[in-house]
Amino acid sequence: MLTKGGCPKNMLSIRDALEALEGRWKMLILFSLSTGPKRFGQIAKEVTGISDRMLSKELKNLEANKLVKREIYSTFPPTVEYTITAHGRSLENVMDALHYWGLAHRKKIMGK
Amino acid sequence: MLTKGGCPKNMLSIRDALEALEGRWKMLILFSLSTGPKRFGQIAKEVTGISDRMLSKELKNLEANKLVKREIYSTFPPTVEYTITAHGRSLENVMDALHYWGLAHRKKIMGK
Repeated sequence: MLTKGGCPKNMLSIRDALEALEGRWKMLILFSLSTGPKRFGQIAKEVTGISDRMLSKELKNLEANKLVKREIYSTFPPTVEYTITAHGRSLENVMDALHYWGLAHRKKIMGK
Repeated sequence: MLTKGGCPKNMLSIRDALEALEGRWKMLILFSLSTGPKRFGQIAKEVTGISDRMLSKELKNLEANKLVKREIYSTFPPTVEYTITAHGRSLENVMDALHYWGLAHRKKIMGK
């Protein structure tokens, strides 16, 4: 592991990352936005299982953490779109690592 | 991102990974065990802020997911030690990615 002695400074960085990404939804929302800007309803459809209330809460949190940008277009009626920021895109390595580990874990636990 | 079209199969692997690692404690416990086998009290001390009840619950969950092994030694009184498994160690890439991203995130959000 990266530890080489479990230095508390590393612990802090991992704590920070886990706090910003806490829960099972944020990464999935970012994953959905990684293919392009989307409206609320589109995200809700792609992230199966999430309630509107939870999606709204998570989007606000992601915005506060500068991972997602909310843009209002002055069409009639106004439309709102969510875009992943460059900082959000910088999670690519984390997502890649989670993806490959998730595949291995499924094989290990469920034997498929 | 790894997506190239947000294929649902990838979504599933990320869901699996997030489910196995859910919450803010599991990765920190594994991180603590990455430097060597430890007793309950030692882990509790290193993972600051975790309650005994939560640590006990998380260790059971990590054991069920084959990430941690619990070993009882027939000393008097018996001692119990927790060890990270090879499967737990395979989270190295995820932890590395979280570590580096956590550092960048702290800089971005807190400006330090």
